[in-house]
Amino acid sequence: MALSEAKNRKRCILMKGPIYIRQSGCVTGPKEGSGSHFADGFDRIWEDDFGGEKNWEEAESALLKQAVEITLAKAGFGTGDVDCAFAGDLLSQSTASSYGLSGLGIPHYGIFGACSGSGEALALCSMLIDGGYIERGLAAASSHFASAEREFRFPLGYGSQRPLSASWTVTGSGAFLLDRDEIGEPLAKVTGVVMGEIVDPGITDAMNMGGCMAPAAALTITSALKEFPYLLENYDQIITGDLGEVGSQALMDLMLRQGYDIGERHMDCGLCIYDREKEDVHAGGSGCGCSAVMLAALILPKIKSGDWRRVLFAPTGALLSKVRTQEKMSVPSIAHGVVIERV
Amino acid sequence: MALSEAKNRKRCILMKGPIYIRQSGCVTGPKEGSGSHFADGFDRIWEDDFGGEKNWEEAESALLKQAVEITLAKAGFGTGDVDCAFAGDLLSQSTASSYGLSGLGIPHYGIFGACSGSGEALALCSMLIDGGYIERGLAAASSHFASAEREFRFPLGYGSQRPLSASWTVTGSGAFLLDRDEIGEPLAKVTGVVMGEIVDPGITDAMNMGGCMAPAAALTITSALKEFPYLLENYDQIITGDLGEVGSQALMDLMLRQGYDIGERHMDCGLCIYDREKEDVHAGGSGCGCSAVMLAALILPKIKSGDWRRVLFAPTGALLSKVRTQEKMSVPSIAHGVVIERV
Repeated sequence: MALSEAKNRKRCILMKGPIYIRQSGCVTGPKEGSGSHFADGFDRIWEDDFGGEKNWEEAESALLKQAVEITLAKAGFGTGDVDCAFAGDLLSQSTASSYGLSGLGIPHYGIFGACSGSGEALALCSMLIDGGYIERGLAAASSHFASAEREFRFPLGYGSQRPLSASWTVTGSGAFLLDRDEIGEPLAKVTGVVMGEIVDPGITDAMNMGGCMAPAAALTITSALKEFPYLLENYDQIITGDLGEVGSQALMDLMLRQGYDIGERHMDCGLCIYDREKEDVHAGGSGCGCSAVMLAALILPKIKSGDWRRVLFAPTGALLSKVRTQEKMSVPSIAHGVVIERV
Repeated sequence: MALSEAKNRKRCILMKGPIYIRQSGCVTGPKEGSGSHFADGFDRIWEDDFGGEKNWEEAESALLKQAVEITLAKAGFGTGDVDCAFAGDLLSQSTASSYGLSGLGIPHYGIFGACSGSGEALALCSMLIDGGYIERGLAAASSHFASAEREFRFPLGYGSQRPLSASWTVTGSGAFLLDRDEIGEPLAKVTGVVMGEIVDPGITDAMNMGGCMAPAAALTITSALKEFPYLLENYDQIITGDLGEVGSQALMDLMLRQGYDIGERHMDCGLCIYDREKEDVHAGGSGCGCSAVMLAALILPKIKSGDWRRVLFAPTGALLSKVRTQEKMSVPSIAHGVVIERV
């Protein structure tokens, strides 16, 4: 049955009770530290891109591990207090997550949703807590510019040219501690989840990931607007991950065709994370770390302070690999949504 | 806190009610068809390794897609009846799953647990159904010898030599339809889940994945034996995924040190799947498809027929990538457990 025929398709799930985002932590590279309006919200900014590690992959694992450790320290918990971690990244075989969480002694479900990883991790972790399967869980995601360039494009030393539609992979990681304890002052609460669905608009240009991902984002956002008991105006922000300029415009157009003008409420983490007067990042920031860092540094503080009461956080992921790209295949994409509200 | 210090670490979760494995489907390559004792249980055997596709990656996606379609057809359902799919594979960015499930119109959570993928998919799908978040879900995993060789080692044309400790990646996929409907005659039921934990014994030889994975398997199995209300003798089989000869012996030794003699109850899918008098597969079969195919073709039929009443299905995954291997890193591993019982 084709997507459009699945008339009763249900993609949205309301939590039975509030799932609290108890604490967050984020660590970034130096370009993010000096070139972002939101650097004040970063918990740690590395002085160089290695962070004391020997190679890019180890550096990305260290970003993730430090984000987890900072989150736990801020919340006053140890690894033994966490029942399970959900983490994802962009590298082959999710190695940034596997090596980053190895040795922490926390049960682990590895996830893969490309740059939608933070949304997928938050969604699954929220449901497992809400269902009573775990009490306290971690959701985390990471990316690193240099490990991503080696993974998907060319080693940095080659100095290859990038088209203007290409985005800049964020060097950073964000981690989030979730529970349902009615105590203290959590940052925000998760009240609903939109299950992502793979959509392939048939675009073969892997340097135009925004265009590839826009239809998946549109499906997730329209599903939320149709199924959840909130109208568009009940959301202070509709937040995508790394659509960039090209993808954001495509999303606007797709949403307008469905009768939704999200223009003034839409924020794309990739378009915001860098001060683009200072940093030339072409189409914007991208990577699993992009939306994760922005959630920790901007979105959760805005919700905690009361500036925003409810947002739809829907990071997008382009599910490509370099092998499939070389095989001239189009790029399927997905967007995992989470409704986050003020406590 | 180190693993051994987490004294109250809880890794095991009992389902609130039985989660039924309603139906299964599996598709394999020709080597598996002609070289396995269990080929009668395979739903479809390809005549060649391409299955009509243009390249190895597309072939693996087709294995997965066909396994899903066969499962749904056997159960009398369409894709519109499935709320969500969990799938994983070995390729970079889980492309076999992403491309294999693209276009089916089923919401999707991509998972990565390397060869433990079938266990992770079954565990997460079971909990989401048990918690009432979805009604009907798919869990699936795939691997392909040739796409895995290209991914991890050398393209086949190079004719590179393999050490005796190396395993042979199974060309195959298994899919499972889960629900909690008290109707019909399901194959079996899931009653518990063991959350896997990343364990790194420090082995850097990626051609000895059995040795790398044995400690993770031992942790998952001992956790089940300590936390669930079943003694070792209450399990008809303790089933690992692809430890092979080297890893299975290591697991026996590790379990004996903890006071458990699992010898006569232990089955390793990798050691069984091929008729090793006919097929030289060195240390045994491996890959996400190995345990998934064996679950569909052997384990579930044995449970359905009453030969086995309860098994612990604990496929193992070596979380390596070729980049980390070239960086001389050791191989962290994980094993995701599921308790499967007769209905």
